[in-house]
Amino acid sequence: MARIADQQADFPQWYLDVIEQAQLAEHAIVKGCIIFKPYGYALWEAMQRDMDARIKDLGVENAYFPLLIPESVMAKEKEHIKGFAPECAVVTHGGGKELTEKLYIRPTSETIMYTTFAKWIHSYRDLPLKINQWANIVRWEMRTRPFLRTLEFLWQEGHTAHATKEEADKMAEDALAMYADFDREMLALPVLKGKKPDHDKFAGALYTLTTEALARDGKAIQAGTSHNLGQGFSEAYDMSFLDTEGKSQRPWITSWGVSTRLIGTVIVVHGDTKGLRLPPSLAPIQVVVVPIYKSDEEKTAVLEACDGLKRALSENIRIKVDSREEKSPGFKFNEWEVKGVPLRIELGPRDLKSGNVVLVRRDTLEKQTVPLTECTDFRMRSLLQEIQDGLYAQAKGFMDSHTYETDSHEEFTKLLEGEGGFVWAPWDGTVESANRIKDKSKATIRLLGDAAKAKGKKDLISGEAAKEYALFAKAY
Amino acid sequence: MARIADQQADFPQWYLDVIEQAQLAEHAIVKGCIIFKPYGYALWEAMQRDMDARIKDLGVENAYFPLLIPESVMAKEKEHIKGFAPECAVVTHGGGKELTEKLYIRPTSETIMYTTFAKWIHSYRDLPLKINQWANIVRWEMRTRPFLRTLEFLWQEGHTAHATKEEADKMAEDALAMYADFDREMLALPVLKGKKPDHDKFAGALYTLTTEALARDGKAIQAGTSHNLGQGFSEAYDMSFLDTEGKSQRPWITSWGVSTRLIGTVIVVHGDTKGLRLPPSLAPIQVVVVPIYKSDEEKTAVLEACDGLKRALSENIRIKVDSREEKSPGFKFNEWEVKGVPLRIELGPRDLKSGNVVLVRRDTLEKQTVPLTECTDFRMRSLLQEIQDGLYAQAKGFMDSHTYETDSHEEFTKLLEGEGGFVWAPWDGTVESANRIKDKSKATIRLLGDAAKAKGKKDLISGEAAKEYALFAKAY
Repeated sequence: MARIADQQADFPQWYLDVIEQAQLAEHAIVKGCIIFKPYGYALWEAMQRDMDARIKDLGVENAYFPLLIPESVMAKEKEHIKGFAPECAVVTHGGGKELTEKLYIRPTSETIMYTTFAKWIHSYRDLPLKINQWANIVRWEMRTRPFLRTLEFLWQEGHTAHATKEEADKMAEDALAMYADFDREMLALPVLKGKKPDHDKFAGALYTLTTEALARDGKAIQAGTSHNLGQGFSEAYDMSFLDTEGKSQRPWITSWGVSTRLIGTVIVVHGDTKGLRLPPSLAPIQVVVVPIYKSDEEKTAVLEACDGLKRALSENIRIKVDSREEKSPGFKFNEWEVKGVPLRIELGPRDLKSGNVVLVRRDTLEKQTVPLTECTDFRMRSLLQEIQDGLYAQAKGFMDSHTYETDSHEEFTKLLEGEGGFVWAPWDGTVESANRIKDKSKATIRLLGDAAKAKGKKDLISGEAAKEYALFAKAY
Repeated sequence: MARIADQQADFPQWYLDVIEQAQLAEHAIVKGCIIFKPYGYALWEAMQRDMDARIKDLGVENAYFPLLIPESVMAKEKEHIKGFAPECAVVTHGGGKELTEKLYIRPTSETIMYTTFAKWIHSYRDLPLKINQWANIVRWEMRTRPFLRTLEFLWQEGHTAHATKEEADKMAEDALAMYADFDREMLALPVLKGKKPDHDKFAGALYTLTTEALARDGKAIQAGTSHNLGQGFSEAYDMSFLDTEGKSQRPWITSWGVSTRLIGTVIVVHGDTKGLRLPPSLAPIQVVVVPIYKSDEEKTAVLEACDGLKRALSENIRIKVDSREEKSPGFKFNEWEVKGVPLRIELGPRDLKSGNVVLVRRDTLEKQTVPLTECTDFRMRSLLQEIQDGLYAQAKGFMDSHTYETDSHEEFTKLLEGEGGFVWAPWDGTVESANRIKDKSKATIRLLGDAAKAKGKKDLISGEAAKEYALFAKAY
């Protein structure tokens, strides 16, 4: 097996090496697209399964809208098309003929969905309308990186319509809270939640909420976003409803999404020098059993014990016995470590004789010898939960120890030049100052904190009175 | 609620009416595309969930390949591009620039997948390779009909590579058998299985197997196909492996798929004059409870009893209490009949007093009064199974009574001019004779039966010695 680049020395290469060695994905022929290999796609399937239930718990129903959007439909919301048209793939021919109107491959589905919402919504009784879609998306990105930014990606997009701004606010916040719960419980991912600055909101939105995680190289990574789209799209797509008093009103719209970028997020937050580390809730294989033997006699006894373990544990645990003959135990240990399997059980003839097995946790790489009789369903599940919690605690510890506050531009620059991380700092609220910071240190505002904390402070660059307390970081 | 056209008098309009009234789908702005509404999409979700497990039981892993295929990649297998290029949507611009090479939106993924398979397959140890993908597909169809033929549709496509023709034959047959099992157990759908004639096989295949169902208007409908692609694609995409003796060989390839057309198939096979009839295995709602009351006092008691039923049954049964206030019981009966819910429970104050409920089966529209205490989980599940079996038996009865054999062209024509159906007849094996039949009676060969039955018989049209015993029908 090829080596993985040193995580500290060359994080970008380490990232690509992990994806290759763990067999998550590979580059496709079309530049910027990737092939999701079975192990990588299994991560997306697990995320989908879990999140789909959470989405349904919010009273949202799944539907499916077309891939292709006519140019005239895209163009109705002016900010939106300005933001998205430059990164669209355009279909100009179909069925052997040139089309009379160009079709965009969806870069997101607001425009096509809201054209239909306008037909579905007539009265306050039709609200709230809550729709979700699992779909593929194409955005013509120039600088791509597997999972983190690809030309085509997979995602879910929730779209809801409400009678009042307050309801839409609540929906946008509920969606964000659902994402943060999912991040913690499923991905062992600590995130910060907050509002994006106006200059970085979704094209056409009133405001955008975000969850931001911190990668091990000190860069921020946007994990999910939720937008209150206000009434702009309602107007552009001519949605209206009669309220309880019979007056015509424009509905308030939200949209929110997460994508296969979450796979990249798991890699850059949890991965270590040996490769991937998967939280047990997410892992396609939670426990791998590696048999060790030399003679045929040993083989029979050891494999029998391994199968016994599998039978005993497989009701509640995703367990695999790696009985490949052509690979050595050492090769297998390495492969499953690279692939991030949370728990490894090693079982050889000497263990069998002494009635023990060796357990190796992927989160700590700690080895322990444990009586075979203690490898019960209950014990193993507790251990997996410990690993889940352990990964969360490690990531949280890293994030907390890399989150700073400063009023000084000098210190700000120093912090971001070092190990990176999140830096809270006062901001005067102007795009100009945000851009100057970006030009100097490549840091952008990830989200806005408690504005009260900015009181009496000055913007790092302009020296003007600060209006916002902003979280800065270099970002993916 | 608007009326549904008479099924006997105008089947095509009946079909469109059912889709509209049952809220399954609606036309999208791009001609030929549909919007899958929540109730329609829920059918696809149920099919996916069930079939995904069957696919994995065949040892197949899910993956995901790109939507966009460069023209040069599509063009490598000559028969394939000849068959598909005319119905492709073509992307010529991306990121605001004209592309140097046209990209096709996948009309099927053989070409893009096999480009990658060639990189994954080196030795006999890498075989069999079994990959499945759930994806959207675009084919530029001119004459579309919701679910049955749409410009964009959803499907799964399995693609496998094997060391020998025998293994590929077996895989193609196993996939077809899996489809037929799924059709019966999940969709209550009887199908005939067999090989397509050569002139109707998949572009580039060695042979194509098919499952064919019979709609209530006497037309055949292809429900799923499975292809042994031979070694043609292996050569075109330069796949090879070293066999156990170290010799370089070309793998044998299969591909197989079913699509959202299955939703249309369920409608045209099971639907009746009142609308959709859903097999319980598939139904998003298996049991609907409709409360009936006038006074507030009655309302409290009746709703309480309805909720009690729901609590008692919801562990194993997908049950819904329709407690909408603004709709009358009559409206609800009609709506759930149109939507094909297998079992309705009506519960009013008089029933409550006598300790009974009224059960209405959607398959037979039969009403029965049953003691509330007998509405147990076991009893209801048995009843749902009875309905599942009942729908299958009805469809099987219809298919059997509309399957004919004839040696006479006159009788053949008469049979197909009447109520339609499947007609077995001898065929000389030439495209010319098949085309002449098609020109005269619009019937095509759906699949080939036991060739031995053709012995000594003559082709219906040419009068030449028959070589095949073929199943003819008008088709969707």
